Amino acid sequence: MIRVGIYGATGYTGYELVKILLGHPEVEISYLTSETYKGKSLSEVFPCSIEKRLIGMEEADPEAVEAIFCCLPHTTAMELIGKVFRPGLKVVDLSADFRFRDAREYSRWYETEHRAAHLLPKSAYGLPELFREEIASCEIVGNPGCYPTAVLLALAPAASSGLLAENEVLVDAKSGVSGAGRKADLAYNFVEINENIIPYQIGRVHRHVGEMESVLSSLAGKEMKVVFTPQLAPFSRGILATVYFRTGMGAGALRDLYIQRYHQEPFVTVLGEGKPAHLAYTLHNNCCVIGVHEAASSSFTVVTAAIDNLIKGAAGQAVQNFNILFGLEETAGLATSSGRI
Amino acid sequence: MIRVGIYGATGYTGYELVKILLGHPEVEISYLTSETYKGKSLSEVFPCSIEKRLIGMEEADPEAVEAIFCCLPHTTAMELIGKVFRPGLKVVDLSADFRFRDAREYSRWYETEHRAAHLLPKSAYGLPELFREEIASCEIVGNPGCYPTAVLLALAPAASSGLLAENEVLVDAKSGVSGAGRKADLAYNFVEINENIIPYQIGRVHRHVGEMESVLSSLAGKEMKVVFTPQLAPFSRGILATVYFRTGMGAGALRDLYIQRYHQEPFVTVLGEGKPAHLAYTLHNNCCVIGVHEAASSSFTVVTAAIDNLIKGAAGQAVQNFNILFGLEETAGLATSSGRI
Amino acid sequence: MIRVGIYGATGYTGYELVKILLGHPEVEISYLTSETYKGKSLSEVFPCSIEKRLIGMEEADPEAVEAIFCCLPHTTAMELIGKVFRPGLKVVDLSADFRFRDAREYSRWYETEHRAAHLLPKSAYGLPELFREEIASCEIVGNPGCYPTAVLLALAPAASSGLLAENEVLVDAKSGVSGAGRKADLAYNFVEINENIIPYQIGRVHRHVGEMESVLSSLAGKEMKVVFTPQLAPFSRGILATVYFRTGMGAGALRDLYIQRYHQEPFVTVLGEGKPAHLAYTLHNNCCVIGVHEAASSSFTVVTAAIDNLIKGAAGQAVQNFNILFGLEETAGLATSSGRI
Amino acid sequence: MIRVGIYGATGYTGYELVKILLGHPEVEISYLTSETYKGKSLSEVFPCSIEKRLIGMEEADPEAVEAIFCCLPHTTAMELIGKVFRPGLKVVDLSADFRFRDAREYSRWYETEHRAAHLLPKSAYGLPELFREEIASCEIVGNPGCYPTAVLLALAPAASSGLLAENEVLVDAKSGVSGAGRKADLAYNFVEINENIIPYQIGRVHRHVGEMESVLSSLAGKEMKVVFTPQLAPFSRGILATVYFRTGMGAGALRDLYIQRYHQEPFVTVLGEGKPAHLAYTLHNNCCVIGVHEAASSSFTVVTAAIDNLIKGAAGQAVQNFNILFGLEETAGLATSSGRI
Repeated sequence: MIRVGIYGATGYTGYELVKILLGHPEVEISYLTSETYKGKSLSEVFPCSIEKRLIGMEEADPEAVEAIFCCLPHTTAMELIGKVFRPGLKVVDLSADFRFRDAREYSRWYETEHRAAHLLPKSAYGLPELFREEIASCEIVGNPGCYPTAVLLALAPAASSGLLAENEVLVDAKSGVSGAGRKADLAYNFVEINENIIPYQIGRVHRHVGEMESVLSSLAGKEMKVVFTPQLAPFSRGILATVYFRTGMGAGALRDLYIQRYHQEPFVTVLGEGKPAHLAYTLHNNCCVIGVHEAASSSFTVVTAAIDNLIKGAAGQAVQNFNILFGLEETAGLATSSGRI
Repeated sequence: MIRVGIYGATGYTGYELVKILLGHPEVEISYLTSETYKGKSLSEVFPCSIEKRLIGMEEADPEAVEAIFCCLPHTTAMELIGKVFRPGLKVVDLSADFRFRDAREYSRWYETEHRAAHLLPKSAYGLPELFREEIASCEIVGNPGCYPTAVLLALAPAASSGLLAENEVLVDAKSGVSGAGRKADLAYNFVEINENIIPYQIGRVHRHVGEMESVLSSLAGKEMKVVFTPQLAPFSRGILATVYFRTGMGAGALRDLYIQRYHQEPFVTVLGEGKPAHLAYTLHNNCCVIGVHEAASSSFTVVTAAIDNLIKGAAGQAVQNFNILFGLEETAGLATSSGRI
Repeated sequence: MIRVGIYGATGYTGYELVKILLGHPEVEISYLTSETYKGKSLSEVFPCSIEKRLIGMEEADPEAVEAIFCCLPHTTAMELIGKVFRPGLKVVDLSADFRFRDAREYSRWYETEHRAAHLLPKSAYGLPELFREEIASCEIVGNPGCYPTAVLLALAPAASSGLLAENEVLVDAKSGVSGAGRKADLAYNFVEINENIIPYQIGRVHRHVGEMESVLSSLAGKEMKVVFTPQLAPFSRGILATVYFRTGMGAGALRDLYIQRYHQEPFVTVLGEGKPAHLAYTLHNNCCVIGVHEAASSSFTVVTAAIDNLIKGAAGQAVQNFNILFGLEETAGLATSSGRI
Repeated sequence: MIRVGIYGATGYTGYELVKILLGHPEVEISYLTSETYKGKSLSEVFPCSIEKRLIGMEEADPEAVEAIFCCLPHTTAMELIGKVFRPGLKVVDLSADFRFRDAREYSRWYETEHRAAHLLPKSAYGLPELFREEIASCEIVGNPGCYPTAVLLALAPAASSGLLAENEVLVDAKSGVSGAGRKADLAYNFVEINENIIPYQIGRVHRHVGEMESVLSSLAGKEMKVVFTPQLAPFSRGILATVYFRTGMGAGALRDLYIQRYHQEPFVTVLGEGKPAHLAYTLHNNCCVIGVHEAASSSFTVVTAAIDNLIKGAAGQAVQNFNILFGLEETAGLATSSGRI
């Protein structure tokens, strides 16, 4: 059994991670931290869960575990990891702090200096379908953002085959409200979101644009821009991204390319002709579902991609990365929720 | 008082229309038809409404009214209107049957022959902000589709100023479920829609593409294609469209153009810089809200547009058209719900 | 035209009230206050509304109006009303501050002293169906709470006919989230409420219990207790109350009694046999819908009652009371939304 | 590995069962039937699932399995089970057909004759917390209805301790829409349910009343009546029941009794003072959460109980029963989803 510590166990992604790890056959949870609820039992916060005591960050003993999962906000995450990292410890960080290899790029998007820049060479970007080998040999995984996970999986086969005809792609993405984190804010009050859909940070403004453009450019071998319209939609979890780009290839051939590219992937499903990704396909599992569509007589290709933002977009992918880090079956602990055998 | 008859009074748009007309100062409802509930009182179907008896279509006396509103399915609508039309009668048809001036174009998209083609010269496309004069002098108004209402208002100022740099625009639109009509279908079961978002008929397939391309081409003075991704979203009413196009003009200047274009319009609001259209702004009123956005350093402009599909996208716009037909104040009966004075 | 001022115009009930009054044929809105948005235009907060400037409370000139509507929190309300009241001014207060005639009873439930107790003799409890005459001759209306409105209308005919066999009734009520007001609180975050239903303050704890017991006891002519289970349900607006009591009368006879009692009421509808109140019947109108049911071979009667908490449970009822205060048609300004003609 | 066959694998409960069994360490799924989708792969219907072919009922080979799960409608279920049952086969039936030991009682509530009455002596009522021993030694488990699961767990400790002072209890229950099954029906259209809550079959009418009264009477040792108000609420899954009864015991002592009664139960959690059951606690796990409340100075006790109707109210409880039938750890395959270790 691999002993792990989880920091930030009572946020939406943190608790989702706890639930997955409780069913993981190779994992033993050593400690759970929660600044909000420290001193309480997890079962006081989530009554159908285990009775483990929640501790403050300073009480945690990272020396006693082989891996940590960090579900803290960015900045806090790199401070903690900078402090507790030691050779041999494996880290999966779900914040943005290890999503860039270049500290300056991080600073540009997050408007703060990187406080653990010396650790960046030990890190990898944790999108297993694209960077499995880098992940296997790194020590710190920067678990991708939820939007980038869906968008990069939707674009990677085209981008890495040189099929993006222009240097711009359009992404129209709808996210469930859990993507904003577990917090009190009038903007997330039920009445403000229900029977509503809210675009925000339109253009090249949202921080995930940096992450998407950075990876997409390296896949495409040229500088790519992502015109991004994120939208808050009235559901709790999940992301549906619609991606538009021009390419010389017809949708049928492109779909075949996608199918071939992802055929061996346990957590990516490419749908057949005429079938778009529905968000519901992916809820509570670690799957990304992709549809490839043509707009007859137009020059655009449309790709639809859906994930559960808390699973493939956060906690599930974190466990997938953990499995790779430790040389386990990549689906370990995820088999049930993904519905695959 | 203008006597009116309403056909199809118990569907989602029909009943919305009844509610608006009950508060219209110049209207007296002569009859309401409903095939599903004929013989019952409206108050049996909708307990807080009036006790007027619902009759079958064949019982209705169109001779006794000055105007009819037709909330029947397409095909049924043109059959009825072909039968009851007489000089002097004003007709507002909420189906697709009078949305094209050209019967062949209708046939191409609706895969059936037009059965009242001789009436097409008497008809106008009922988007008042674009075709107010044609509406004022016609006899039959083809009330626009819900998607085209939002999309054409979002594109018209740019299109008619020659600012669409390419001959394609991209439209990513999210619709509430009432847009599909009041019917039994597993696809619209609460459980299938809730916590889900469902793209469908992607590309240039949906029938509203024909309507949008036809009007947009005539505004732009060149043949335009609309790459369209409609999506069924988990709310009851409303449409949010995100529209992407290339233009030489910066977003600031374009926004000014939109503001100037719609400044006098009682039912269109153009938002200031950095403010996207939220669906909720428009619910239960006849307003279309528009945001104009730039994607910094990219070549695309993003326009967000929201309407209530049952009001500005159907029943409210029908009343607006009715007001124009009869030379009434254009906001009559709509002032309350639009919140304007 | 009657000039009115509205205090607290940008909360959920305040803005609902503004929308109703904008369509009221006898009302001219003189001023709107908002502490949160003062200095902005109403149309900046709600883009499809009018461009009236929002002012701070201290800027308002109550001398210039004939009536004020007070949508402020309790305590703040009585302080304001205590300050601005003058003979001749009519006040509709939507807070709890004038719902009790007895200052000590108020203090017991709201745990603070009444700061305008000298005005209580000038006030009436604003449930028109029960206290129309008192309202007509008072100067300050204490607009009822949303739960009490539904529950008292559901119980009044039985209570005032001496048909409550026991001195306890059970009320199981489900409320939309707008009932909690427009505020930032993790408990009202979309993710916490969606796909959830949350009982709270079970028993005789909720402050509305005091209001219900006080009125119910006076109707029944004996001391009544209300065992109350309020529940927060995943919808924005509306209350559905299920009320259980023992009575000697069969449900058929009881339903007849209810029908007879409310037959003349423009805003109460009693449904026929086998028809329960659905929440949706009442949304966006001022109607209370009531179903009377029997539990075969049991000794209990079940009454279902639904209202829109923001309309009949707040802003609509406030306008109904205003109409009574000024001797207007009781349905003025409400006809449209109620769907009655 | 125990080979199992699942009948009706593509309904809401059927597919939930498939997902749980795919993660069950001791189970091998031999076949899945689906009348609607036979010939297709399960992954065509649910894209993130396995690629197993769905077969028609007549194609299934029950001889090849040790257990079957039957997720068919009532009547169809007993016909199938009557046909395929053989000594040694274990059956978990999720329909109503084996929920009564007495065929006449079944006929009274389901208005049809029992067509496999000879098998009733081999069956047990599958509520493990109450009938674990009977289940362990039976051959056919009648998996309880969703409402009865929540209500009986909420009442059992009081009933079996002789603490129900009257012979009537009141149950006000709110159910998610999946409880109605996966079907096309205007009543379950998203627009009809969203922003609504709908009481139905009020009193002693709903078929689950028979099931509840039968078990409750045997627990209480006297004839009990259940006055039942089921309500369709705008969420996909889950049941929250509020139960009212008179008892001589205070809520504190009663809560202690409940805690003691369920202390050893892996799937029942009794909450502390002042904490009501929230539906969300139970979603996607096999837990029933119970709150015990007092209504100060009144004679009523209020119990709140929540379950996921598809898990503890159907598929999860079916697996729990399966585990008991085969002498496995009762939590096998359920540990993950229940969050217990």
